[in-house]
Amino acid sequence: MKITLAQLNYHVGNFEKNSRLIIDAIREAEKDKSDLVIFSELSLTGYPPLDLLKHRDFIERCCEYLNIIAAECHDIAALVGAPAINHNNSGKKLYNAAYLLAEGKIKDKVFKSLLPTYDIFDEYRYFEPSTNFKVIELKGNKLAVTICEDLWDEQSFENDFSSSRMYTVSPMDELARQKPDMIINISASPFSYTKTESKRKIFTTKAAKHKLPVFMVNQVGANTDLIFEGNSLVAGPAGNIIDIFPAFEEHIASFELPDIIKNRTAVKVETNRIEMIYSALVVGLKDYFEKMNFNSAVLGLSGGIDSAVCLCLAVSALGPSKVRVLLLPSMYSSKHSVDDAIALSTKLGVQYDIINIEKAYLAIEKSLSEIMKGRPIDVTEENIQARLRSLILMAVSNKFGNILLNTSNKSETAVGYSTLYGDMAGSISVLGDVYKTDVYRLADYINRDSQIIPCNIITKAPSAELSPHQKDTDSLPEYEILDSVLYQYIELQKAISDIKGPDINPDLVKNIIGLINKNEFKRFQAPPILRISGKAFGPGRRMPLVGEY
Amino acid sequence: MKITLAQLNYHVGNFEKNSRLIIDAIREAEKDKSDLVIFSELSLTGYPPLDLLKHRDFIERCCEYLNIIAAECHDIAALVGAPAINHNNSGKKLYNAAYLLAEGKIKDKVFKSLLPTYDIFDEYRYFEPSTNFKVIELKGNKLAVTICEDLWDEQSFENDFSSSRMYTVSPMDELARQKPDMIINISASPFSYTKTESKRKIFTTKAAKHKLPVFMVNQVGANTDLIFEGNSLVAGPAGNIIDIFPAFEEHIASFELPDIIKNRTAVKVETNRIEMIYSALVVGLKDYFEKMNFNSAVLGLSGGIDSAVCLCLAVSALGPSKVRVLLLPSMYSSKHSVDDAIALSTKLGVQYDIINIEKAYLAIEKSLSEIMKGRPIDVTEENIQARLRSLILMAVSNKFGNILLNTSNKSETAVGYSTLYGDMAGSISVLGDVYKTDVYRLADYINRDSQIIPCNIITKAPSAELSPHQKDTDSLPEYEILDSVLYQYIELQKAISDIKGPDINPDLVKNIIGLINKNEFKRFQAPPILRISGKAFGPGRRMPLVGEY
Repeated sequence: MKITLAQLNYHVGNFEKNSRLIIDAIREAEKDKSDLVIFSELSLTGYPPLDLLKHRDFIERCCEYLNIIAAECHDIAALVGAPAINHNNSGKKLYNAAYLLAEGKIKDKVFKSLLPTYDIFDEYRYFEPSTNFKVIELKGNKLAVTICEDLWDEQSFENDFSSSRMYTVSPMDELARQKPDMIINISASPFSYTKTESKRKIFTTKAAKHKLPVFMVNQVGANTDLIFEGNSLVAGPAGNIIDIFPAFEEHIASFELPDIIKNRTAVKVETNRIEMIYSALVVGLKDYFEKMNFNSAVLGLSGGIDSAVCLCLAVSALGPSKVRVLLLPSMYSSKHSVDDAIALSTKLGVQYDIINIEKAYLAIEKSLSEIMKGRPIDVTEENIQARLRSLILMAVSNKFGNILLNTSNKSETAVGYSTLYGDMAGSISVLGDVYKTDVYRLADYINRDSQIIPCNIITKAPSAELSPHQKDTDSLPEYEILDSVLYQYIELQKAISDIKGPDINPDLVKNIIGLINKNEFKRFQAPPILRISGKAFGPGRRMPLVGEY
Repeated sequence: MKITLAQLNYHVGNFEKNSRLIIDAIREAEKDKSDLVIFSELSLTGYPPLDLLKHRDFIERCCEYLNIIAAECHDIAALVGAPAINHNNSGKKLYNAAYLLAEGKIKDKVFKSLLPTYDIFDEYRYFEPSTNFKVIELKGNKLAVTICEDLWDEQSFENDFSSSRMYTVSPMDELARQKPDMIINISASPFSYTKTESKRKIFTTKAAKHKLPVFMVNQVGANTDLIFEGNSLVAGPAGNIIDIFPAFEEHIASFELPDIIKNRTAVKVETNRIEMIYSALVVGLKDYFEKMNFNSAVLGLSGGIDSAVCLCLAVSALGPSKVRVLLLPSMYSSKHSVDDAIALSTKLGVQYDIINIEKAYLAIEKSLSEIMKGRPIDVTEENIQARLRSLILMAVSNKFGNILLNTSNKSETAVGYSTLYGDMAGSISVLGDVYKTDVYRLADYINRDSQIIPCNIITKAPSAELSPHQKDTDSLPEYEILDSVLYQYIELQKAISDIKGPDINPDLVKNIIGLINKNEFKRFQAPPILRISGKAFGPGRRMPLVGEY
């Protein structure tokens, strides 16, 4: 038996595109004399379809396209992920299903049992969990078909306070009783730099435990904030990884089952964290623009590290001709900031324009002078500058159709060191899940072969340049310390008293966490953030806005 | 046996305040010689605690306060809602629990079985469903204690495509086998103008079905977007409503069980939809300010209906001395708009300031003139005005501490007839869940006794006044028609081909729904919206941003 894995880049709700991708892969596999081609979880709808699943016409269209795909499966079988209607008169309306398409029709289907409902996942919002476990037969082989989380029953999740096992059922243990010949897992598992290794281990552990080969197919590419790395894999019955698909690109390959069963070799898998983050962000940006039908980008280039790294990522994703930048100096901008920004733009070959905001700023100040008479200068004036810049950036965006990129990093987003409707503006946040210390690492990565980002941008002390001689460290601890506290509180969800480390003391921790909590109201209105960690700001982190904590 | 129902206003995460409210009510009920005082679901944490439940220290503090409350229960028992740790080594870490506190300690507890995970509810994100059903004994009586959704097993949910029954278990049918003497339901059920009647029917139906009295306690007040009406009630075994608590205010009352069992009378319950919406919004605003520790508000008063109604609501919630308005006319503002705004401000006794934005607007235009040379005027210039207004409003907000109220209504939020970072700005959206046609009804309600909102504001044709002679109907259908389509698509989640009505044709429907879908990116960055309907924009409606639909 020959099995093909198709790691593809789906677009949520785009049945036309997704079915075409699926049918093309079926035809290719058929030419390759494959018996079965496997697609990822909810491949037909793209993952995550969210509340589109609540609309009857969406489900009906999905069924139509499923039949169109089934009609293509004559000399080959396909396993396609799509929702299925629950025809019982109780329980949620849908199942999360894997359809076996063969002989021109829907031959069989399997429903997902473990429904991830944590972090960015809301599957129990839509689906009824299956309690019925059965292997699927194909050409004399018994297939244990599992859907993503169905193989994750032995993991603890999220943080050390969560249960050692989140589920009370083990679908694979149930299926094992029926003596399957292989484990298939169709996934939609988004990238997180903290989980690349543990994810692979889930499949190798199950393979070894059940002494069965595992074929895992994950989707690739991005839908809004979620970026999928793919990394589909084939593991042998000894728990050895025989093949792992490339990260962040489409890939199709076929495997002879007997070869896989007897193969005892293991490929060496090496990943570089920063390289993975870089690639994820480039794909995230590229797919956001392509799938939203956006053509070009604009961003404000300040001469600081965040907008510099952001620009390099944008150029890598869209090409230099599709990105323009504005330099928006005020009376507080240093000469070197403007020079550095020009140097980087020139190096990358992107169009730059300089608009000094001083005059418009003074006109605004003047119209406010009556109402603000006698009031001392404070953060208000800094915010006016930041908001005036975003107003100008949005004007260029509206006039020329360039989509504004938000350049805030995760550290400042966390503590609210940013202006709502000012530097928090943008259609998508490129670095909002990247801590400042990692932004520097990304800069080093970008400069790995030659100096692209000017040295001065990397070495100078970070500053918002909104008041004379301002430095980030006037208001914030050093980023090494700050990021360590943030990571322990946000990603690891540690209790406050458990947050420890060099130069970290309880007052500092309380202070930083106070800032995080107090700034929920700003993040509520932040743009979507490309997610690369296990806990990004946005839909995966739901903290009360009104709340005393 | 005497039973007290305590309908109280909790603050999420504020153990200090919530436990004080609970202890005060226990003491009051004790004086009243009550045997049992009942509080609402998750009363100790306030509802909804969201991801605070993921933090070990939050759960530990909750346990501490629960013990403090238990120590107050000597001659009385109390039923308090709070999370409980699941000590099994599989399943979610927590249960959603009702604790019976008596004899100075935790005497017993009951776990919630049906976990709402739809719309704004995410309970399976946090809680393991209970599969164990037992009545609680107290002074010779058997109490069937159910937690909110546990009594909602026979409802269909959300829309006509959803299942007739969302759950496969009926907790009350299970409990009925143990021959209880009464049904208790502790709820945290937010207000929706579409559900006031069907909600009451749930309790009267269960009372009649099981021939048992029902004591239902709901929380009152608002936490961010969610507004709880209270309306706790007591139903007799015939399904008759014996008492219903007032909406939107705290209330405590006691009932003798034998009286309730033999009482066959029914109170007449009448509700006025617009009056309920008005009260909900006032409470929503009031609690947002109180619980966020905000003192005063600011809003831009345009002379249009939305900001006028918004101002009346704010004055009702906070008092005239805590609200100030800015009139921000441009060259496109009509004279009567300014006059009407002044008339309303004067009538309500709020401070108003007039800042003409023309000069600052021209300065911005001038700084953009080079870059935009030769480009025709388009929506860019309108957006600059809207963003300049929000920049000035935010400057006043920053300088004086007045919190900016967003005045957009649901109709324009739906179709994107608004400027991101412009009139979409604000700390909280007051009318974002109120359709334009209902904004007019609210204006009539406000003017029911005397003319508060000037007649002219109500009768003139709606206009954004961002370009010469502009009218809303230049770009949008009449609001009666628009709102009917919006309601069918958003609240009723109808399939597109099922959306019907006078003057509604398929092209118009397609056009409007295209606008709704295309503007997800704007709403992603909208402020929290006070929720009064069954489907508000915000966390209860999760549509893909990147998606083809």
